[in-house]
Amino acid sequence: MRAAVYYGPNKVSIDDVPDPAPAHGEVKVRVGFNGICGTDLHEYFAGPIFIPTSPHALTGNQAPLVLGHEFSGTITEIGPGVDGFSEGDRVAIEPIYRCGTCGPCASGRYNICKFIGFHGLMSDGGMAESTVVPQNMLHKLPDSVSLQLGALVEPMSVAYHAAKLGNVRAGDTAVVMGAGPIGIGVWFALKGLGLDDVYVVEPSPVRRASIENLGAKTLDPTSVNVAEFIGDHTGGSGVDAAYDAAGVQPAVETALQCIGAHKPLVSVAIYEKPLETPLLNLVMNESRIQGSLCYTGDDYRAVIDLMANGHYDTTGWVTTIPIEQVVDEGFHALHAGKKMKVLIDPSL
Amino acid sequence: MRAAVYYGPNKVSIDDVPDPAPAHGEVKVRVGFNGICGTDLHEYFAGPIFIPTSPHALTGNQAPLVLGHEFSGTITEIGPGVDGFSEGDRVAIEPIYRCGTCGPCASGRYNICKFIGFHGLMSDGGMAESTVVPQNMLHKLPDSVSLQLGALVEPMSVAYHAAKLGNVRAGDTAVVMGAGPIGIGVWFALKGLGLDDVYVVEPSPVRRASIENLGAKTLDPTSVNVAEFIGDHTGGSGVDAAYDAAGVQPAVETALQCIGAHKPLVSVAIYEKPLETPLLNLVMNESRIQGSLCYTGDDYRAVIDLMANGHYDTTGWVTTIPIEQVVDEGFHALHAGKKMKVLIDPSL
Repeated sequence: MRAAVYYGPNKVSIDDVPDPAPAHGEVKVRVGFNGICGTDLHEYFAGPIFIPTSPHALTGNQAPLVLGHEFSGTITEIGPGVDGFSEGDRVAIEPIYRCGTCGPCASGRYNICKFIGFHGLMSDGGMAESTVVPQNMLHKLPDSVSLQLGALVEPMSVAYHAAKLGNVRAGDTAVVMGAGPIGIGVWFALKGLGLDDVYVVEPSPVRRASIENLGAKTLDPTSVNVAEFIGDHTGGSGVDAAYDAAGVQPAVETALQCIGAHKPLVSVAIYEKPLETPLLNLVMNESRIQGSLCYTGDDYRAVIDLMANGHYDTTGWVTTIPIEQVVDEGFHALHAGKKMKVLIDPSL
Repeated sequence: MRAAVYYGPNKVSIDDVPDPAPAHGEVKVRVGFNGICGTDLHEYFAGPIFIPTSPHALTGNQAPLVLGHEFSGTITEIGPGVDGFSEGDRVAIEPIYRCGTCGPCASGRYNICKFIGFHGLMSDGGMAESTVVPQNMLHKLPDSVSLQLGALVEPMSVAYHAAKLGNVRAGDTAVVMGAGPIGIGVWFALKGLGLDDVYVVEPSPVRRASIENLGAKTLDPTSVNVAEFIGDHTGGSGVDAAYDAAGVQPAVETALQCIGAHKPLVSVAIYEKPLETPLLNLVMNESRIQGSLCYTGDDYRAVIDLMANGHYDTTGWVTTIPIEQVVDEGFHALHAGKKMKVLIDPSL
């Protein structure tokens, strides 16, 4: 079968690899769609970062590996010892390998497992015609959720998990810094949690237009003093939660000026380096910066429920390409800002 | 009466000023001891910062003003409309003026009142033989709590408030960055909350020796890799809470490496500028940085209770001077690191 194999930085090729077979507790999935994640870009242009070059503690695998951890598909084969799933089931994959015994795992927070691995980074993943995954990664998709949406459950769960860590309630106010795929996801999640008064802050006109088309209110930080605007808009109180899905210094600085007393800035960004952070804002306001990483099954279930209710709209920000185009129309187009979210359809 | 009057940077003089008289709802207090705070140093060397140069929103006062917001004393006169206090009562003063109506005040968090003022920064304070304060600033001292300790209730409450914001429980582990008066106070507070396994990180040998004499375990960050030590000490879990009472970049960076998953770094420092902060640590660990400012009455009551039980020991870190020496033996000696905590005794 065809698969996008990662050999090292700037070295991904579409190879013919053996069709995998499910072992005990595993199923084989024919991949419907597989999204390209920012992590994949980092691995392609500057990796290996997460991809192991010696056997991974949980999976035992190392590069070269088939990429792809954001995917959906249809079960085509059931391994021994698998209960509750059948051939033909349409599924989204929650790609986390966890140790199950460390402190975070013991408390159900396997998203910060000390030995965490990802299917598609620490094992052969979904940028292929098929892949095999353990049963505990499977989430059935309702009929009303397309396989295209199913491939977006992973990034939308990253965003939903972050949205929840803001401790927001229906009617609360929020700002979201950045309108990339995660920023879009946070906006969808906040809407799903009952927040109507949400501003998305994004300097790129293309990205602003994209999220405005989905119904979002936006602010252009190159022409509006965002902190002043939010101060006026909230009667001086500040927002109930801010989200950093941009990962750059001006976003963090502005967000800290927007949050109210005892309120959080939830950080759901990968920071390439330490940023100059005005910690005094946290002290004067008793506010906080809360980190957010990945998701657990609860987030997957919530996102799939919202999808089943027609909550997520992919218009204008999601593009589908054949697997052969993963480097040029995938990694390079995303890196150049020409596309926002790219899904690979291995059947094309 | 004699008072330390602030006229501007490097201009504090001991003047003879009129004896104040209590207005409605106020009492007159003969000052027992008044501590010099880091804030006073900032006002003296680089102010005015908090001291208003136009009438303050709540107090109507402006410089020149009598300094002093950390003090205890004995009530010598009761103004009209004051209930529950009598001449001769020994009191600690909680020096916060609050508006009572802003969002934080409405939720009981008047320590972050939008219009906050301090007795001794926004009105004539406790570096004087006497001062008048509104009744709601008074906390009676039990007989077992000396007036010297009473003057330390304010800074110890700053520290206690921060300790509580760490959400710690008896038996938890913690690290405290910095062994100045607030770091000492956080250590005392954590002990009072039932934590035995607390390390205080301090590069100064003098400060380390001082807090070791009180019974603390210390680490010298110039000779020990603190993050590695704490990692080993906690079996890789990290501490349940870290506290930054140092306010410098290496302290924040190290503290973020020491905290466990979903745990806080409580910041109880005044940062002179934005610091390079490794926010990625927060994301990978879903940990947080939580700001802490001042205290409320609950903190005062808790600290006074602990003092009544003999919990606080001033040996080796508290010095008393006459008011005439406030500049040389107070501000300059503290600024030069020759003293740790200085109390003014206006009766000397």
